[in-house]
Amino acid sequence: MMALIVCVGRSIYVKRSELLLVKLTTVLSEAQRQAQTITSNQYETPKVVTHVPGPKSRALAERLGQYQNVDAVHFFVDYEKSEGNFVVDVDGNVLLDMFMQIASLPLGYNPPKLIDAMKDRKNLASFINRPALGSYPAVDFVERLERSLLAVAPPGLKHAQTAGCGTCANENGQKAIYMAYQRRLRGGRQPSEEEKMTSVMNRPPGSPKLSFLSFTNAFHGRCMGALAMSHAKWFHKLDFPVPDWPIATFPRLKYPLNEFKGENEREENRCLAEVRDLIVKYGRRGEPVAGICVEPIQSEGGDNHASPAFFQGLQAICRETGVYLMIDEVQTGCGATGKFWAHEHFSLQQPPDAVTFSKKMLTGGFYFTDALMPREAYRIYNTWIGDPSKLVLLEHVVQEIKQKKLVANAALVGQVLLNGFLELQSLYPGVLQNARGLGLLCAVDISTPAKRDNIIHRLRNKGVNIGGCGLSTLRLRPCLTISTSQAFMFLNILDSVLAEVR
Amino acid sequence: MMALIVCVGRSIYVKRSELLLVKLTTVLSEAQRQAQTITSNQYETPKVVTHVPGPKSRALAERLGQYQNVDAVHFFVDYEKSEGNFVVDVDGNVLLDMFMQIASLPLGYNPPKLIDAMKDRKNLASFINRPALGSYPAVDFVERLERSLLAVAPPGLKHAQTAGCGTCANENGQKAIYMAYQRRLRGGRQPSEEEKMTSVMNRPPGSPKLSFLSFTNAFHGRCMGALAMSHAKWFHKLDFPVPDWPIATFPRLKYPLNEFKGENEREENRCLAEVRDLIVKYGRRGEPVAGICVEPIQSEGGDNHASPAFFQGLQAICRETGVYLMIDEVQTGCGATGKFWAHEHFSLQQPPDAVTFSKKMLTGGFYFTDALMPREAYRIYNTWIGDPSKLVLLEHVVQEIKQKKLVANAALVGQVLLNGFLELQSLYPGVLQNARGLGLLCAVDISTPAKRDNIIHRLRNKGVNIGGCGLSTLRLRPCLTISTSQAFMFLNILDSVLAEVR
Repeated sequence: MMALIVCVGRSIYVKRSELLLVKLTTVLSEAQRQAQTITSNQYETPKVVTHVPGPKSRALAERLGQYQNVDAVHFFVDYEKSEGNFVVDVDGNVLLDMFMQIASLPLGYNPPKLIDAMKDRKNLASFINRPALGSYPAVDFVERLERSLLAVAPPGLKHAQTAGCGTCANENGQKAIYMAYQRRLRGGRQPSEEEKMTSVMNRPPGSPKLSFLSFTNAFHGRCMGALAMSHAKWFHKLDFPVPDWPIATFPRLKYPLNEFKGENEREENRCLAEVRDLIVKYGRRGEPVAGICVEPIQSEGGDNHASPAFFQGLQAICRETGVYLMIDEVQTGCGATGKFWAHEHFSLQQPPDAVTFSKKMLTGGFYFTDALMPREAYRIYNTWIGDPSKLVLLEHVVQEIKQKKLVANAALVGQVLLNGFLELQSLYPGVLQNARGLGLLCAVDISTPAKRDNIIHRLRNKGVNIGGCGLSTLRLRPCLTISTSQAFMFLNILDSVLAEVR
Repeated sequence: MMALIVCVGRSIYVKRSELLLVKLTTVLSEAQRQAQTITSNQYETPKVVTHVPGPKSRALAERLGQYQNVDAVHFFVDYEKSEGNFVVDVDGNVLLDMFMQIASLPLGYNPPKLIDAMKDRKNLASFINRPALGSYPAVDFVERLERSLLAVAPPGLKHAQTAGCGTCANENGQKAIYMAYQRRLRGGRQPSEEEKMTSVMNRPPGSPKLSFLSFTNAFHGRCMGALAMSHAKWFHKLDFPVPDWPIATFPRLKYPLNEFKGENEREENRCLAEVRDLIVKYGRRGEPVAGICVEPIQSEGGDNHASPAFFQGLQAICRETGVYLMIDEVQTGCGATGKFWAHEHFSLQQPPDAVTFSKKMLTGGFYFTDALMPREAYRIYNTWIGDPSKLVLLEHVVQEIKQKKLVANAALVGQVLLNGFLELQSLYPGVLQNARGLGLLCAVDISTPAKRDNIIHRLRNKGVNIGGCGLSTLRLRPCLTISTSQAFMFLNILDSVLAEVR
């Protein structure tokens, strides 16, 4: 406790919000104190020594710019020097990382457990000899699968398929659903020669005009099938042909959710009615909806939440209409929300038909029900279909998450962050709105996109790396080992930036 | 020389084809003798101790079958024990590997150079901290890119973009081409608000109805955009919706190519005329062809070759019609054909607009011209957009290829393999036809699909792992370190199998 109080005792933030701090300290439990020991202590605070990006980052970007577009490069990272929750850039700046490679590092930088795994000679072969996994799996593959992906499978789901990344996870999930849908239509009949031959030439009946329903502001990836379900930002989409599939409105809720219950319920029901209508409409026009894809929290699209009732309603519609439900947990999975899978917050009546993952899980892939099991060889397949060396690491990540109770830590520190956002929102009502969060997936809207970008820029130059999403949202995506004192450190720095830009 | 003669001197094969051997030995040069030392010698010959797959492989497959479809699993591999050109399975069988994880291992199993790279502590951070590469590249990323991908860039191409796999390489290549195509149409005008907004909702003008032309029997990958260009086998395609894009006939040539020059030229011209017609037709129906995608040798579709004139003709059509040419070198690249890139055999007048790669290159990605450089941030992007730890390994692979002259070795051993196929074809005319090859990418057709599968099965049980492609083709995809004595060893075993099944 001392360390925490000393740390925040220096801050502007605590002076302004002592009441909040008192409230927060009451929730500090044994689990939380344990979490304080999660990360090593090479860096205790940020250290900014140049403008970020600094001269070395800018020089490297110019050099890289000869070969590819570098407009999205923020800065160059010294991954050897980075540690725990602190990222170190090439210019020597040490930043508290609240974004963690777009939510994709589960344990922060260079966790000792993964260093040990890499040094273990018996793991070497996995890194050097990447197999054609669907045909020549390694002797230890089943065991590794059981100790990694299957050890954290969502309740009720027993099947798991690896894939290269989140996009490929969603595209393969779509394909498993298309197969199940068509198989059900064939009612046990084997595919005909005509179906096989026409499929090869992109024509019905073998290549049927099926569609996948997605939501406004969704983001599911960048290859054609995943991109067709993504509707967050123009630069993901412009100039790219995609099929004209049904897009339902994702609920635009008012926050805090418990203050606007009635209004939000009406909004969600309106959106569910749209889903029903679109399923009927696309069925009539001969492009039936085979599946619905949805994020538990829309991330890229602006950290948009919906209630458990909404997801229960979606599942009920799926059951009634014979449409399969695929939940995209690429960003929300792996403990970030305070449960291992975000959809566990929704009390669904039965498991989703497919749950896709990537990012913190280190490998892409999806869990699926019996109905989605492919019936023929080479159907969900490509040369690599994932990378078992990632399972070697994931196995240790899963161990660490369980041993250190990192999911509970995410719930706890998430509460600190959300309370901090709420407190700051009351201090800067003209700048911050709609503080919201589930576990570590906290976000707050900024009054304008320009001010949001300005805040991100200033935060970076005061030692915090953070991301945006949606039109003008600040999004937190720290790793699972973040401590409460680091959460306060972030809130304190944010406070000082808000004081400058308000 | 002695080693080679002793080795083949024991074989049935050499007894039957002494003339061939004499012809072959005349091409054995200094480079070849050097190549004999490429691989280590833990295994000198195959050793089959159980039926393949053996009892341990079958038990593991049953266990894995609880979690995913395992119908494509051939056997489980002990990657620690495998070495050089020999794969060792869980039952202790040692097989000469002429398939090498579907053409994806450049240097065979556990090459010492890669083991050293993995043990080098300064490389550790690359494996543990997978970055969001487009935004937070590592300090050493530019250098690694220069020493790996850029060190072997196709002539005339200076830009390179990484991607996760071959499918993602082709989908990102498509997107770079769509952007260039639409940018040209806009003629310098910035995208309008209407274009941006409609793109997000999958509608024109922002999401234009562009198409990509591909060929019968092509294979370019498994996500929706790549799958729409793939036409090799029904199980890649059945039940999956894809856009109705133009598909031109890939030339069906007669082998040996130099015996059927006139006939083959007419066939290729017929196919080129089809390409022209399809570009006009799809332009008229409002779905203009933005790009053409083609493999230098159609691999999955049956190892189908076309002449340099065909590819020159394709490029000429592209120039005339303003269509971009993307060459898919996922399987043909990285030295396998006796040049680093297969399209270098074609003497094209100018570089292709995009050249995609994966497999032996260890990372997916594509090279591209200035015209294809994205103009805005986050256009060719996703969280990982490749994996720089693969570049750490690729850098050493590229060094090894150069130092050991492995591209020349591929040309030389490829000649041995092709001559062997030709010789066996004359010995078993009722079974083998159409022996063909370019470097190590050798293939021969078998009289029926069932006989082909039988031959593959028998080869495996005599100590050779090999693959099929097309309807009834045997395809060789050894790694670049294969020696001539190993080539003879393979031919000898094939000979003994053919004697059984003829």
